[in-house]
Amino acid sequence: MFTLCYTPHTCSLASHIALEDAGAEYELRRIDFSKNEQQSPEYLRVNPKARVPALVTPHGILTETPAILTFIAQTFPQAALAPLNDPFAFAELQAFTSYLCSTLHVAHAHRMRGYRWASDASSFEDMQRRVPESVGACYGLIETRMLRGPWVMGESYTIADPYLFTIAQWLEDDGVDPRRIPRVIEHRSRMGDRASVKKAVAEEIAPPPRV
Amino acid sequence: MFTLCYTPHTCSLASHIALEDAGAEYELRRIDFSKNEQQSPEYLRVNPKARVPALVTPHGILTETPAILTFIAQTFPQAALAPLNDPFAFAELQAFTSYLCSTLHVAHAHRMRGYRWASDASSFEDMQRRVPESVGACYGLIETRMLRGPWVMGESYTIADPYLFTIAQWLEDDGVDPRRIPRVIEHRSRMGDRASVKKAVAEEIAPPPRV
Repeated sequence: MFTLCYTPHTCSLASHIALEDAGAEYELRRIDFSKNEQQSPEYLRVNPKARVPALVTPHGILTETPAILTFIAQTFPQAALAPLNDPFAFAELQAFTSYLCSTLHVAHAHRMRGYRWASDASSFEDMQRRVPESVGACYGLIETRMLRGPWVMGESYTIADPYLFTIAQWLEDDGVDPRRIPRVIEHRSRMGDRASVKKAVAEEIAPPPRV
Repeated sequence: MFTLCYTPHTCSLASHIALEDAGAEYELRRIDFSKNEQQSPEYLRVNPKARVPALVTPHGILTETPAILTFIAQTFPQAALAPLNDPFAFAELQAFTSYLCSTLHVAHAHRMRGYRWASDASSFEDMQRRVPESVGACYGLIETRMLRGPWVMGESYTIADPYLFTIAQWLEDDGVDPRRIPRVIEHRSRMGDRASVKKAVAEEIAPPPRV
């Protein structure tokens, strides 16, 4: 049994969907950013980075979306969520998830979390103005060079798909024109039709359970 | 045979060291940032992201340090550079490399590459002022919670070690006080004693070969 620490509207949705795709047994634990719960002493014992996602497993706790996604794919090989027996194809998949975490997600984060890297209000505004361009450039590359179709890595659905879907929830708010990236939008729509995605999204949007 | 596209003083050193550690046959191709070679049409055909590293393999081209490092570990299992048969330990390793690429390297990049996320000189100066704190916080976490010792993941040397060593080359220039992170510094020193590291560093510092 796993417990996924998540927050709605963050990248933890990718791990949530992958757990569904894998047919894993898991519980959800909502971390309420509005109450700064990620900074609570209790949660810092789970994840000293004060971020989501964190996956509590019988072996220990995992953080970082690419790592959690890989762990799910390797733990449930029957779900065929990664090319586990092909080192080159596996590395290509890793390259995609690395790009999302280190470049696309980082560009996006400059819209609302500029305080991580600067201090002045004028810097935050400057960063926010650049987000449509910097995030848009990432999507341009994904659209033309990286997204193979129908799924990210081609004919086979992988852990890259829920990760792209999750970050692509934010692109309109980032000021990216969806008409310029029709293949990304089509992928997002195709993902939205999947039962695993519908279930995960519904669970996250539902009111938090009483404790 | 592999070809590693690299630039001195960048994170491509991690892949270079790992190729040495693995006993791989490889050639080096230097990409000269001072001549903006990463933006040349020829290099953009290798890596449309205009970054290093890129690893040219018989199967195709790989980018992103975590992916290249994983590929090297999986292609040369006899070098034992990753816990390939333990999904949880492998995921922990992935979590470490993901943290370096998405958080520590990104914090560092705000010192000299603020133009990726902002436009104004005042924003760049603001970002630069924050680097000692933001990069220092990453090293604080690595020092106290992540670096197990003697190697990053514990008793076994892995691909995480050359990656941390590479980024740790920059910490003094980032304004981080090395006296506050003695275990990171000790790790860097231990790495510097390895033959693979000495060879890779010497090759990168040498003048580029005539073409």
